[in-house]
Order: sequence, then C-alpha cells, then structure tokens
Amino acid sequence: MIKIVVIGSGNVAFHLIKQIEKSDEIQFIQNYTRLSTHIKEADLYIVAVSDDAIAEVSASLAVKNKLVVHTSGTQPMSVLSDHIRKGVWYPLQTFSKQKKVDFKTIPFCIEATTEADYQLLERVTVCLTASFFRISSEQRKSLHVAAVFVCNFVNQMYQIGSQICEEHQVPFDILRPLIQETAKKIQYLPPKQAQTGPAFRNDSKTIQSHLDFLEEKQMQTIYTLITKSIQQTHG
Amino acid sequence: MIKIVVIGSGNVAFHLIKQIEKSDEIQFIQNYTRLSTHIKEADLYIVAVSDDAIAEVSASLAVKNKLVVHTSGTQPMSVLSDHIRKGVWYPLQTFSKQKKVDFKTIPFCIEATTEADYQLLERVTVCLTASFFRISSEQRKSLHVAAVFVCNFVNQMYQIGSQICEEHQVPFDILRPLIQETAKKIQYLPPKQAQTGPAFRNDSKTIQSHLDFLEEKQMQTIYTLITKSIQQTHG
Repeated sequence: MIKIVVIGSGNVAFHLIKQIEKSDEIQFIQNYTRLSTHIKEADLYIVAVSDDAIAEVSASLAVKNKLVVHTSGTQPMSVLSDHIRKGVWYPLQTFSKQKKVDFKTIPFCIEATTEADYQLLERVTVCLTASFFRISSEQRKSLHVAAVFVCNFVNQMYQIGSQICEEHQVPFDILRPLIQETAKKIQYLPPKQAQTGPAFRNDSKTIQSHLDFLEEKQMQTIYTLITKSIQQTHG
Repeated sequence: MIKIVVIGSGNVAFHLIKQIEKSDEIQFIQNYTRLSTHIKEADLYIVAVSDDAIAEVSASLAVKNKLVVHTSGTQPMSVLSDHIRKGVWYPLQTFSKQKKVDFKTIPFCIEATTEADYQLLERVTVCLTASFFRISSEQRKSLHVAAVFVCNFVNQMYQIGSQICEEHQVPFDILRPLIQETAKKIQYLPPKQAQTGPAFRNDSKTIQSHLDFLEEKQMQTIYTLITKSIQQTHG
C-alpha cells in the first residue's frame, strides 16, 4: 500500500485527494496545508501548489529520503532542490472547480531521478485509472507551450466566435456542434489533414469579405495572421 | 412525399443523398450533375455546388415555380435570381470525405422568400433528423465568419501545437484528451467562463518563458496577439 500526503489546497489537490480515496491500492494519509503543523509519514509527497510557491513549500517539508514530486507543467524538477528523491507528476488537463474530473482522460507526464521512483509514480498513476508518459523537463516545457495553443488559444477563438454571434443576434448554440466535431476529428486525424475553409482553399474573395465584415481592428489582425499561418502550413 | 433533386457532385451532395435515401417521408429523385441532360420533376431542388458556381448552375436549371435552394454559408439568397421561389439551406458543420456524417449533429440555417417554403425546408430538415434555425442572409454571414474562428482557426491552433510537439519529440497524442475536454467545456459553459492559463492569470513570467521557448518569429507573433486578446476579454 503506497501512502500519500498531498500538499496544497487548490483545484488539483482537491480532485487528487478525491481520486486517491477511491483506490484500494494507495492510501491517502494527509492533506498538508498552510494551517498544518505536523507532516505525517508517507511514501510519496505530492506538492500541488502554485508554480511560484513550489520551491518554498517543498523546502519547508520536514521529510527525509522520501519521494517528493510537484505537479507543474512549467517548473523543472530541480526546483525541488532540498530533496534527494524527487520527481514531476504533471497532469496535462484543464481542471474546473465546477466540473467532476474523469481521471481516465488525464495523461500524466512523469519524470524522476531514479528508475525505482519513476516506477512508483507509474504505479500510483495506474491506481488512479489515468494514463502516463515518460517526459523530461525539457519535453514538458514544450508540452506546456503546445497546451496553451490547443487549450487557452482555442478557447479564445471560441470567445471571438461567441462575440461575433452576440453582435449579430445569432445564438452561439448553432456553433456548438461544429466546435465538437472539429475537436473530434483531431482524435483520429492529424490537424494538417483536418483543415478546411477559405484560408485552406486560398479563397481570397471570401477572406476579403470576412475582413470587411469584421470591422474591429484587432479581430481583423487576428483573422489575417492566422489565415497566413494556415496558408504557410499548406503552401 | 416531398420529392428532391440534388444538384452537384461534391461532399455535401454526396452525404445529403445518402441521408435522403434513409427517410420514408422524403424521396430522392435525381442527382443532377454536369453530365445530366434532363432534369426531373420534383418539389425541391438543392443546389450543392461551390460558391462561385451557384449563380450559373441555378440559372441553367429548367424548372418553373419550384423551390430552388443553395447550401452555402457565404452567398446571399438573391444569387438564385432566376427563380421566384428560392431559399437557403445551409448545414453549419465540417464535412470530411473520410468520415460518416451524423445528421443529428448538423444545425441547418434556413431562409426562404415565403413562409410556406420556409416550412417545407423545416419539414425536410426534420426528416433528415437534423436541427434547424431561422437565419437571415446577414445573420448567416456572421455565422460563417464565426465558424472560421471556431473551426478553421481552432484547427490551426491544433496544427501549431502538433508542430511544437514534433520539433521536441513529444507525441501529440498526449494533447488529445486536453483538446477534447476544452471543446466539451464549451457545450455547457460560455467561453469567457471556461478560460484558464497564463494569459488569463496575467502570469507574465510564464508568458515570457514561452516566448523565449518558441524562437520562430511567426509563432511568437501569434502567441503575443492572442495573449493580448485574452487579456482584453478579461481586462
């Protein structure tokens, strides 16, 4: 039975604890937060705090020769410098407070200083029903940048679409099936093969009529730039 | 029984014919293409050809006092000028040759010169198991622009993400669950409420480290522009 202490009181810590408690093969020991005075004995200490706090919080943990990991996509493993046995266990998913998390849809990016500790993290991941990938700190950084494009920037495209709908009294609901289908396609096609639309077809008449329609300067700039990007990809 | 002739030989015509044939309440009469010499008698003529060809193809149809519609998101209804009874019947979805189309996920944007013809198009849409919205030519234009953002531009964000993965030897597969979840959130949340990430948090340290990481000038420009757009939305 692998004993686990979770450090932190945010979204990730919350969902993690709930999932650990569901498993029979790993044991939730303690949620260590700002108000805790004493840290309990465990096999694994998961530091699920904000990026800026990882160094300080991990340094303050009074544990010796135990595996300490953080869950950040942006921080290198070396930020846990006070601990000999260290690792990173980064869930590459978007968490919302409002929504239940299905751990089956979370790939964990795992890194550790020793193979034994890597294996321990793999076992914990399996117990949580999640999937895993062996990812170095450098690779994780590239994944985090890529995630900003495919999650945050994609969501901003949804936001601009919804703004256009609102300005013209059209329900955004009409676009929801298209949004769903566009994401679904990517589950089995590479994005390059999935592309359609006026930029892809070099349909300059439609592109110009869209730019005339948009009016707002910043939307036009985004439209032009991403149109060019599509044309370069397929040029 | 509503009798239907489909004009055209592209993707939309192909999927449409297959679906009409499944219904017991509407009847597929003919697929009229470049090689056809004689057009058959029907209640509804659906012109599913490329935008540039609609005017010419529809003008060449030897039918009188029959409802003629096109399926384009960009063309006004008036492009069917040779016909008195006209309409637009625009399926707002992305079609791929490789993939089966589920008509339940297609909202049709309907417009017609008379209420009776509008009702006829609504009935046909229901027979195909699809959903419908009453949309004017002007509204349809705004929907088409919005669709470019939420479909084509979103797909280009996927493409850039996949390029970053490739350059750093990370499997793009790790990002697929995140892509899926980001689209799923939008099925019940407005995009503004769904946003997360460094731009949303005004985390300038992470933003700068991402820009340093990207190196390629055009990716940096896109990153900066969409980051600003997110910050304006949430400013």
